[in-house]
Order: sequence, then structure tokens, then C-alpha cells
Amino acid sequence: MLLLLMRHGVAEERETWTEDDDLRPLTKDGEKKTREAARGLRVLVERIDLIAASPLVRAQQTAAIAGEVYPQARRETWEELAGAAFSPLAARLKEQKFATVLLAGHEPGFSMFAAELLTGKAGGFALEFKKAAVCALQVEWGGRAPRAALLWHAPPKLLRAL
Amino acid sequence: MLLLLMRHGVAEERETWTEDDDLRPLTKDGEKKTREAARGLRVLVERIDLIAASPLVRAQQTAAIAGEVYPQARRETWEELAGAAFSPLAARLKEQKFATVLLAGHEPGFSMFAAELLTGKAGGFALEFKKAAVCALQVEWGGRAPRAALLWHAPPKLLRAL
Repeated sequence: MLLLLMRHGVAEERETWTEDDDLRPLTKDGEKKTREAARGLRVLVERIDLIAASPLVRAQQTAAIAGEVYPQARRETWEELAGAAFSPLAARLKEQKFATVLLAGHEPGFSMFAAELLTGKAGGFALEFKKAAVCALQVEWGGRAPRAALLWHAPPKLLRAL
Repeated sequence: MLLLLMRHGVAEERETWTEDDDLRPLTKDGEKKTREAARGLRVLVERIDLIAASPLVRAQQTAAIAGEVYPQARRETWEELAGAAFSPLAARLKEQKFATVLLAGHEPGFSMFAAELLTGKAGGFALEFKKAAVCALQVEWGGRAPRAALLWHAPPKLLRAL
């Protein structure tokens, strides 16, 4: 599986947002830059089979923007993407039969997930994961423990320049 | 320190090269693509203070191409880059006072070095490191053990599209 982890784009400030944090949306500029990043991603990855997003609004919006660029991708919402626990998300991914999966989610969950997937243990290493960045991993889910390799890791500045 | 690891570009085939492997050069197409990758790097990194290369010809040529894009960078040749041992290269880097350093070297040395720098142990994880790819790490060398974070990792396809 080619697994793409995409962090949600720049959202309204947590400090000034007065409603439920789950409803906190992307800013206008965040939407624009996330769209530019998604278009850059299209230069690197031709086809995505499944886009799964956390239920939080900012991740849902990020997945919708990715969906504009990959309109043929199946779209799902996964509760496992709201938290930062490794095993439930790994188990959900292991069930999938798709060749290329994009997950839209959050920090610190994504950098922790990638590091644990790559090293086999929690707190494996520090990965800087900016908003609207994408990390690409090749993963073999067969066997007791997944085997993964880091293919590339692209901050939004890089994706938007493509 | 912003540490950039750049693997040498596509070189003549090891199997058909009849001279000393240390003298094996980049192909014409390898030179061209390495130059395109170096120009892409310039979009991401404005200034490089030091470019250090392994003594092998393919790494020297790669460093020279990077030097075209960063003409103000100091150029050195480091024997520590010819092998794949962690400690000598880490010790050499720790001595440097430069803010941004690019190393031109080899696989499997570079992916092993990056993984050990990030995780603190040998064989930390699998990092796909294509020819003319660049991996960017933020490293604090102070203290007994270095502290590092992976900022981005860009294969040549990505750099050349910038």
C-alpha cells in the first residue's frame, strides 16, 4: 500500500474559536493553500483509491479539497483518525484492499503514527509535520508486524511549488 | 544545523565499468537530472554554507553541480563520506560551525546515517533514498547525543518538478 498522510490545512486559531474545537474550520487562506498543495500532490501521485478523514471539520475540509483533485477516490470518515492511538488506525488500514490510500488527519497523531510504523516502536523519531504537509509511506500489512519505508515527506511549501 | 544529505546522481553502471569504482562518473543524463534537482533544491533552501563530498568521483561531480547553484558555499572533501560508519561522520559534523551543510554521498550510508541520527540507534528505519534525492534534517549537535528532526525528504522527481 502507498499510504499518504496529509495533515489538515491552516485552520482558525484554537484560542479565538468559541465553539466546539471539532467544528473549527480551515481559514480562507488555509483552504487556498491546501488546494495548491493537493494540486502539487497530483504531480507526484496519479491515482488515489481511498481518501479517509477524521470526523473533525478541518480534516473533512482537507479531504474534500483532496477529493477535488482525485474525484474518483472513494471517501470515508474514520473515527480512528481523531485520536493518536497507533493500533486502531493500523488495524483499520490493514483491512483495506486499496493500493493507494490518503488519510486526512492531525498532529501530533500523524508524526507519531508514521514514526511508530517505520521503527516498530512508539516515539521512534521526530518528524516535522506542517499543516497541509504530506508524508508518503510504502507499507506491507501482511505478517504480524507491518513493514514500512519512508518514500518522501513534503511540506506544503514544497507541494505548492510543484 | 540544517543538514542536507544529497545522494549522488545516476552514474555509469557498476557492472560495465572497467576501472576503479571510485572513478565511476555520472552519466550525461545523470548530470542533467542532478542539475535539475539542485535547481529545485534552490527553491527550498536559499543559502548553503558548506558543501562536503565523498572523494568518489560521482559524489564529487554531484557536489560540483550543487556548487553551481550555491556558488558562495565553501567546498570540502570528507573521507568520512566514503564509508557508512555513523560515528566518524557525526563527529566531523559536530565540529562544524556552519548553519547549513550539504553532504554529497552514497547509499546505503545516507539512509542508515539519517535513521541513526533520528532514532539514536543503528537500523532505525527504512528510508528510500534515490539517486539525486535530498533529505533535510534539523540537528542540534550540543550535548552527548545529537537531537534531530526530519524536515523533509525529496526524491529527484519532486525536486526536478520545482
